[in-house]
Amino acid sequence: MKRYAEMTLAERTAEYAAVKASYEAQKSRGLQLDMSRGKPGREQLDLVTDMAGVLLRPEDFISDGIDSRNYGNVDGLPAAKRLFADILGCRPEECFVGGNASLQLMYDAVAKAYTNGLLHSEKPWCKLDTVKWLCPAPGYDRHFKVSQSFGMELITVPMTPRGPDMDKVEELIRDPAVKGMWNVPKYSNPDGIVYSDETIRRLAAMKPAAPDFMLMWDNAYCIHEFDAPFRPFPDILRLCRENGNSDMVFEFASTSKITFPGAGIAVMATSEANLAYLKPLINVQIISYDKVNQLRHVRYLKDKEHTLALMRRHAEILRPKFRAVLDALDATVAPLGIAEYHRPVGGYFISLNAMPGTAKRTLELCKEAGVTMTGAGATFPYGVDPQDSNIRIAPSLPPAEELRQAIAVFCTCLRLAALEKLGI
Amino acid sequence: MKRYAEMTLAERTAEYAAVKASYEAQKSRGLQLDMSRGKPGREQLDLVTDMAGVLLRPEDFISDGIDSRNYGNVDGLPAAKRLFADILGCRPEECFVGGNASLQLMYDAVAKAYTNGLLHSEKPWCKLDTVKWLCPAPGYDRHFKVSQSFGMELITVPMTPRGPDMDKVEELIRDPAVKGMWNVPKYSNPDGIVYSDETIRRLAAMKPAAPDFMLMWDNAYCIHEFDAPFRPFPDILRLCRENGNSDMVFEFASTSKITFPGAGIAVMATSEANLAYLKPLINVQIISYDKVNQLRHVRYLKDKEHTLALMRRHAEILRPKFRAVLDALDATVAPLGIAEYHRPVGGYFISLNAMPGTAKRTLELCKEAGVTMTGAGATFPYGVDPQDSNIRIAPSLPPAEELRQAIAVFCTCLRLAALEKLGI
Repeated sequence: MKRYAEMTLAERTAEYAAVKASYEAQKSRGLQLDMSRGKPGREQLDLVTDMAGVLLRPEDFISDGIDSRNYGNVDGLPAAKRLFADILGCRPEECFVGGNASLQLMYDAVAKAYTNGLLHSEKPWCKLDTVKWLCPAPGYDRHFKVSQSFGMELITVPMTPRGPDMDKVEELIRDPAVKGMWNVPKYSNPDGIVYSDETIRRLAAMKPAAPDFMLMWDNAYCIHEFDAPFRPFPDILRLCRENGNSDMVFEFASTSKITFPGAGIAVMATSEANLAYLKPLINVQIISYDKVNQLRHVRYLKDKEHTLALMRRHAEILRPKFRAVLDALDATVAPLGIAEYHRPVGGYFISLNAMPGTAKRTLELCKEAGVTMTGAGATFPYGVDPQDSNIRIAPSLPPAEELRQAIAVFCTCLRLAALEKLGI
Repeated sequence: MKRYAEMTLAERTAEYAAVKASYEAQKSRGLQLDMSRGKPGREQLDLVTDMAGVLLRPEDFISDGIDSRNYGNVDGLPAAKRLFADILGCRPEECFVGGNASLQLMYDAVAKAYTNGLLHSEKPWCKLDTVKWLCPAPGYDRHFKVSQSFGMELITVPMTPRGPDMDKVEELIRDPAVKGMWNVPKYSNPDGIVYSDETIRRLAAMKPAAPDFMLMWDNAYCIHEFDAPFRPFPDILRLCRENGNSDMVFEFASTSKITFPGAGIAVMATSEANLAYLKPLINVQIISYDKVNQLRHVRYLKDKEHTLALMRRHAEILRPKFRAVLDALDATVAPLGIAEYHRPVGGYFISLNAMPGTAKRTLELCKEAGVTMTGAGATFPYGVDPQDSNIRIAPSLPPAEELRQAIAVFCTCLRLAALEKLGI
């Protein structure tokens, strides 16, 4: 195959006619396929459904002398803290175990900064004229929306293969209005990048002008390898502590992609001083999170080793899906020189950069053919990709056959959009 | 027995010595008894533990075509909305079903007003100089703390046997800085008062100066009779709608005292317009609440009739506890003229007004003897009871024998505090 950019106009016109015919054929099948979000598929849900039956008799519900069915323990069951500390490599007393959503814990931490101020805040952030926030991009749309919902000014920081551009970060944090930064340090969403040791070291050693800077460390994919052995990862809490930044970091994780996406448990890990400050504020909002579900998870997942064994079974389900997408891209798109993409070994996404100016058009064509993808631009602050290039592919939800159809449609649409852009 | 106020000094001195001797005997037992919060007891938890086993096989988790295990449906499962609509008498499309805590839904509704503004707000409340809030008192300490945590000015409204003093309310809402009001309309916390039809009618017809006034309707005890048949209650959403106040009311309920206190499900019911406005704001915070637990409740509770049958079984456990407290008070305290108290037939509390100036001292004495009660003043805004008189008794948690011991200690302490106050 010839690269599109090297084709003559006549060659492109002929190619367009051929690809358009494939597209019309695909479209006529009336597909309804979803690759928009990092949702586990049915097979993964069934894999862990045994969990539902681990607590049945009244005596099953007691843990460390606490009846998980009753009110109390706003920061979670001790056993759930131990489980997350084991997985994250931090200390149980640094863990606040919440409900079914780490996003909720992130939002609430920022919300408390906004309405009440944090431990080292001069005043609640809602009393400030401007709050700025660093957003490595491409990144996770829901992170950006949290910041945006509080009226913050989002500042894009480019991602490199080693993580966010640290020269840029170190320059930006000199501004005291810069109050925080989003990070998905392992298998970043969507690029699948693992922050390098050097990047992590520089982040932990930062000296932001804002005394209440929040290093948001969303370790969503901490044990989520699907095509590689488990990769150990440094404990960011310890690193920050060693750099005199104990209260700067807020780490998050959940079992959303370990057990049930909609019914897992989540953790916020941060310094004991931060927890001592935040616990009474969170206690105004809720008496306690669902400790029965916490205990169900503790009994089912047991510890890090046992959880890693479960993750290897998830990997067996996910690996063929990611490979199917990469195989299709390698065969159909790579030779045409119209897109570049990452080859992640963990996480939930494949990040693809289409020819600049074609991402929106590609996804528009996909939608017309019944294939839903994450909206173009979603991976950038304010939903605007200045290059109109980045596309996030989420292969986890569709069953294998549907996935093959969906990715075939996607490749066709990428080609059409590129040809339109180059001129036909 | 002679009323303490009618005793001579010598009689009081003798009485004090006798009561003090009982107190020392009680104290020497080294009790550790808790009547501080409205926590259901172990027997009530065991009663509903069957619920844990209703969802086991993968196919059990599907409801209306939705897989409850996966992400999605931020406003809850349709089946859970139908269940709460049945119980509250409102419409399913007015229901937003959340996580395990109605307090969290209340807090979040107020928080959104504060950080983003409500449907009819001119601007977010954090941009206003003053926000005032009406607090019928005695009332629920956690309500007051939510308002307080946002820096609002809490205004006490006296409770009458028919609900809050409506003349006072109607006067106060003329101030546009008054943005909302707490209510526990059925078996109010702590008085156990049921708002009269007239009170409810006047509340639904209010015309507050603030266009974004929040009538907070915490229907926590909507089906929680323990010593009377179920008492039907008007649908506040319909009443507000009929009065042109559709968007003024936010109703809340939960299964915390129907199934598991720490692991139930909660609802916010409000106008469809309010939900359309709030849903995207809440979706920034969370992708979806625990729908597996929602479905578990739907399958277990089935509908209002079936849930009322369960509540009658809870009543059988609670009734003897409330009666034991009332019997002890009737026998030991009432004849002395040192306290007045309500005789609720639903809810979770008995509200007692001790001789003014003796509530704190009574609870201090209780604590010394190993009996924990809700702190004096907790039932008033800012935790300050101007009369130092109101005490909230929560008889639900202790087993029968412990409860008898605890209430005996409490009666002794009431007597000591009254005698000290009158002079010995």
